Amino acid sequence: MPPAKRVALLSNHLQPEDVRQPAGPMVGDGLRTIEVEQTNKLPSPAQTLAEERSKPSFPVRQMTYFLDGGEKMTALKEKIMLQLERDPIMKVSDQHDITLPEIRERTMAKVRRAAYYVAHESQETFKRRMEIISVLDPATWTRIGVHYGLFFGALRGQATPEQFSYWAQKGAVTLNGMVGCFAMTELGHGSNVAGLETTATYDEASDEFIIHTPTLTATKWWIGGAAQTATHAAVFAQLIVKGKKYGVKTFIVPLRDPQTFELKPGVVIGDIGAKMGRHGIDNGYIQFTYVRIPRSYMLMKHSKVSRRGDVKEPPLQQLAYGALISGRVSMVTDSGNVAKKALTVAIRYAAIRRQFGSKPTEPETKILDYVIHQYRLMPLLAQAFAMHFTAVEVNRIYESLMVRLDTLHPGSKDQEEVLEQLKEVHGTSAGLKAFCTWTCLNIIDQCRQACGGHGYSAYTGLASTYSDFAVHCTWEGDNTILTLQAGRYLVGCYREAKSGKKQAGGVAYLNNLQSILGKRCEVKTPSEIASLSVIAEAFSLVAANVVKKAGDDFEAALSRGLKEEAAHEECSQVRLAAAKMHSFGYLFHRFRDAAERCPRELREMLEKLCLLYGLYTVAENSGAFLQYGYFTPEQIDWIRAEVSELCRWVRGRAVPLTDAFNYSNFVLNSPLGRFDGNAYESYFGVVQRAYPAGQVPAYFDRQIKPLLTRKFEGDEMMEIDDDDE
Amino acid sequence: MPPAKRVALLSNHLQPEDVRQPAGPMVGDGLRTIEVEQTNKLPSPAQTLAEERSKPSFPVRQMTYFLDGGEKMTALKEKIMLQLERDPIMKVSDQHDITLPEIRERTMAKVRRAAYYVAHESQETFKRRMEIISVLDPATWTRIGVHYGLFFGALRGQATPEQFSYWAQKGAVTLNGMVGCFAMTELGHGSNVAGLETTATYDEASDEFIIHTPTLTATKWWIGGAAQTATHAAVFAQLIVKGKKYGVKTFIVPLRDPQTFELKPGVVIGDIGAKMGRHGIDNGYIQFTYVRIPRSYMLMKHSKVSRRGDVKEPPLQQLAYGALISGRVSMVTDSGNVAKKALTVAIRYAAIRRQFGSKPTEPETKILDYVIHQYRLMPLLAQAFAMHFTAVEVNRIYESLMVRLDTLHPGSKDQEEVLEQLKEVHGTSAGLKAFCTWTCLNIIDQCRQACGGHGYSAYTGLASTYSDFAVHCTWEGDNTILTLQAGRYLVGCYREAKSGKKQAGGVAYLNNLQSILGKRCEVKTPSEIASLSVIAEAFSLVAANVVKKAGDDFEAALSRGLKEEAAHEECSQVRLAAAKMHSFGYLFHRFRDAAERCPRELREMLEKLCLLYGLYTVAENSGAFLQYGYFTPEQIDWIRAEVSELCRWVRGRAVPLTDAFNYSNFVLNSPLGRFDGNAYESYFGVVQRAYPAGQVPAYFDRQIKPLLTRKFEGDEMMEIDDDDE
Repeated sequence: MPPAKRVALLSNHLQPEDVRQPAGPMVGDGLRTIEVEQTNKLPSPAQTLAEERSKPSFPVRQMTYFLDGGEKMTALKEKIMLQLERDPIMKVSDQHDITLPEIRERTMAKVRRAAYYVAHESQETFKRRMEIISVLDPATWTRIGVHYGLFFGALRGQATPEQFSYWAQKGAVTLNGMVGCFAMTELGHGSNVAGLETTATYDEASDEFIIHTPTLTATKWWIGGAAQTATHAAVFAQLIVKGKKYGVKTFIVPLRDPQTFELKPGVVIGDIGAKMGRHGIDNGYIQFTYVRIPRSYMLMKHSKVSRRGDVKEPPLQQLAYGALISGRVSMVTDSGNVAKKALTVAIRYAAIRRQFGSKPTEPETKILDYVIHQYRLMPLLAQAFAMHFTAVEVNRIYESLMVRLDTLHPGSKDQEEVLEQLKEVHGTSAGLKAFCTWTCLNIIDQCRQACGGHGYSAYTGLASTYSDFAVHCTWEGDNTILTLQAGRYLVGCYREAKSGKKQAGGVAYLNNLQSILGKRCEVKTPSEIASLSVIAEAFSLVAANVVKKAGDDFEAALSRGLKEEAAHEECSQVRLAAAKMHSFGYLFHRFRDAAERCPRELREMLEKLCLLYGLYTVAENSGAFLQYGYFTPEQIDWIRAEVSELCRWVRGRAVPLTDAFNYSNFVLNSPLGRFDGNAYESYFGVVQRAYPAGQVPAYFDRQIKPLLTRKFEGDEMMEIDDDDE
Repeated sequence: MPPAKRVALLSNHLQPEDVRQPAGPMVGDGLRTIEVEQTNKLPSPAQTLAEERSKPSFPVRQMTYFLDGGEKMTALKEKIMLQLERDPIMKVSDQHDITLPEIRERTMAKVRRAAYYVAHESQETFKRRMEIISVLDPATWTRIGVHYGLFFGALRGQATPEQFSYWAQKGAVTLNGMVGCFAMTELGHGSNVAGLETTATYDEASDEFIIHTPTLTATKWWIGGAAQTATHAAVFAQLIVKGKKYGVKTFIVPLRDPQTFELKPGVVIGDIGAKMGRHGIDNGYIQFTYVRIPRSYMLMKHSKVSRRGDVKEPPLQQLAYGALISGRVSMVTDSGNVAKKALTVAIRYAAIRRQFGSKPTEPETKILDYVIHQYRLMPLLAQAFAMHFTAVEVNRIYESLMVRLDTLHPGSKDQEEVLEQLKEVHGTSAGLKAFCTWTCLNIIDQCRQACGGHGYSAYTGLASTYSDFAVHCTWEGDNTILTLQAGRYLVGCYREAKSGKKQAGGVAYLNNLQSILGKRCEVKTPSEIASLSVIAEAFSLVAANVVKKAGDDFEAALSRGLKEEAAHEECSQVRLAAAKMHSFGYLFHRFRDAAERCPRELREMLEKLCLLYGLYTVAENSGAFLQYGYFTPEQIDWIRAEVSELCRWVRGRAVPLTDAFNYSNFVLNSPLGRFDGNAYESYFGVVQRAYPAGQVPAYFDRQIKPLLTRKFEGDEMMEIDDDDE
């Protein structure tokens, strides 16, 4: 079966509602069905998309396998999509028209489903499932992730083996008995975890900790799962023993009775109310008023408090970093996946939407055929691929790091090397999380705008995709702060390289600064400029220059007598610029690696996309490339011309590329993005189901009739004598 | 009374709910109130903002007068804000927590209020009222605007005097008797109005038009007010007389019985359902099935159809443009106003939000004191001022044009000049509408992100500000299409200038291209680069170059034998680039004009902001300035350093600048943006009122208990003999 047909079958089979749509061009019940005056003979949307799919292209199915990491993985993803699609609990089609309580309850039902799958499938399969759920229904992804990612992650990372099995027995693995939430942020503290105000004071007399919220700003805030789901919380609090503070540690605090869901004494929880998106998550606030927990509820894998109040701190504080990285890596993955979804919708719609035309006698032009529309969407398509391949690589690095961290014995001889690797993954993932989530957020909104007026309809799905996704730019490390962290890491690498320490991985370009800094592009003709190796050199040169500038500015600040923190602060803007160009370059290099290792029949397609990614990024940031003199103004003009040419070339394969992403109609959940192109009928069908026609508004008598039938006040004006008349 | 106090009084007086907030740092009822452990002695938010307001600054009240256009106008705006704030019908404080039907009904009640004011105040006062309502409650602005802007505008622009008084008598002025909507766009056609499919066929026998929806895509779609408000529609339809098509004309079609609100025979209307924002608007779809209206319901100021079916076309088609411009101009105004609101919230919050710190013994640092945060917000503040002053100027030009158009007799001797002016306003407003709405949309989201996690709360107000505002980038001319229109206008001006026709107004820089194109910035030291005249020259040079490139590429395409349309199409990308740099320059020049004409005591403040606007725009678009060689790479470095320095300088006046915008707490409707800085208590109060603490979710027994108390499936596994064991 050809790939196109396979996907169509998968999705059509499973959306019986859509079949109810009227078949003809005019819609109505029998009585109103009338003779149709077809004003111009358009090819049907299905014909249009079939035509798009019949053009010379690339092997779509092979591309899907390559993106997914092999045919087996594609089969697994399709199996999961089918399971989700057939499961009534996973319904999303009506999500824009149900109430908040309905959304919350349905999301909880989905969490229950996830608990089943956690227990019955491999971790790898569950991970894929979660990746798809994140695209399909981001609030559900989070509500599941609050327990299995954050709470359970805290146990895995910070509990002793005895503690871990204690909580596992209580239900932390299967949820029969408990559900956890992750109580880190407070009303007054988000990014600065060290500044949290909640206290955990050791009471030696009773061998208990007293968990307490001392001020309003210490109220735990934004806690996903707190308002309606969790029985327990992993609470971050300042450890105080014998009057001395030891910094923030993690404590498991029971919140509710699992039998009745009544709050435990001393615990107050409320919903924090309306949000921008992810409405299915029950974010809440928690205030603790002298709540007592056993000493053993402090997670003691790293720091320990003994019965007598002796505090033992861990030898390697940095190891706690590992857990933080996991969220960032998953957001790089999500950025690629969500971008692919948004682009599928915008591109398929652009292929069937016709507007304006060159001749009145011919069908109007597909908007995808306009130069400007290609320029709006094709570079974003290339960005989605760049993020995808970067995510694959970052996941690989992260997983290999985790294996080494799990088996690391403090003090062992490879400790130094593992810590180096940790530092690199930490610094790199910080920048990638920030720039990929920003890039994806931009892609979503550009795709929405590219759908014109219908992009503003909730049913197109891009508005909610935007508001659901936007939080990625803030949580698990505010993007701006992460870019500064990434910049600080780069400044550190630069200074190490300067002092002769060889840099590996993504910052290897810092090793031979002298030879790279002054490089110039030697290309003499426009046709030669579209070269992956030219772009690679351009990125290395610019990244090296901006990192050098950040490093030099930092050292200059130090030499003026500033302390390290103040010097970093002063160089914030250049640090951010360094992180940006480094991250863009990193994305390009990972894309290029993928284009090199891919099957031969995909090479041309991926190389062109990679060229488009690189050249477009250069054109959009031409200031930096001109500033450091790698390209001349004339070469930049050539690059712009080449970007337009590549947009045109990629546009010819745009619909097949969305097919290669292989999202079913169910996962897309957008009439405009349907595989068969039947956007208008499907969209009209959705609207008709949600709001039956011909309703008189319930408030007609209260608000409209009094307006329409009122006497005009002037009519009743009393006449008075005006002396001055 | 000092200005600060005056605003505080206005708003505090009127938000009694806020007074109910707990006063102390720990919140709760009497029983739970406990002794407070104040961990570090922070200045209160009120002290913090008072300190911000006591720094050396500028006369805030004078700035407000200057922005508003005089003390009287400020007084008027404050009067309107007070009226809105005290009117229970205008309530917005709970808008994030009420249902869609509630929002719709409340919005209708607000429309009724507007109908009262329309009849009882001057047009100028009503215009100000609408400007404030647009910031306070954009959906209400639109639902009012659908009648008074679009429907009524169609009558004014296209009805004969007799027709106008007929509909006025029916209630079109006061709404007693009828409410109109504007049925232009269809499911299949938005931008291409000429391609609309709805037909209006003249039936000579009955002297009627037959209005008809021939296909599904001809369904009128996105029609504001159609679903629940309007009794009549101004319908755009293809005029067909004796089998011949005459293009799109406007027809008034009764939709509903004003007494019962029942649909007229042949009219089907439905709600188009959930949207990204502006939920208070009842956007609907309309299908007409052979609906008959009298011939006199076609608006015949321009085109006329006689009793015998003779069609008379107007001599000057372009005059219909005038009405289109009004919406664009109002969106430039709105961009400035909404940007000011978003910035007020983000800046005041940044002044009281503390995170991280240099010393553990001292209060944490205000996030507004971080270099990077200043760089995030201060340039946007400058952009808001630039948009404000540009809006003032564009309104002035537009109004003077309208006066001339209204009094223009076709064929009179100043016709040529008026049409020239129309062309300029049309071209300029197209670019400004696009780039100002995009700029404002970006400002809103940057402000939201700058509020960190709390930016994702609906109560901060920036999420809904974003989703409400976003439609400005699409309606009344999709931004991308408008940039191309603007670019086409610029190409036209360039070609005229080349052929010796002198250009006036915003494109005067095209008159002496030879002298300007090769200019170089002569500045030799970093301190000289921050000069308004340098920046002005830089913008002229770059705009001239990009416009020239667009024009030359266009002519090259023509000379290769392309037809005009195809040549324009090929040059889309350079046209867009031309419109962008021209518009940015236009904004700079209008800002600079304002900084020159302002009262002396405001000059330093406005000049610094204008410099920041200009230099930041150069830095962000450094590619263009380097490409055309106006600045050297070294000068760009100076500019970046100067931008940072200006950010620091402006930051010192940032809170007073938000005060100068003079939005009351009611209009801001954001705890984070409160004048008194009491963000946390206010925010907590809003949440507590919306969602009382300690609720057990209604679905506990259905969804949570079965999960927590279920038997794990594995427990019941039957034992079977495995032969291979």
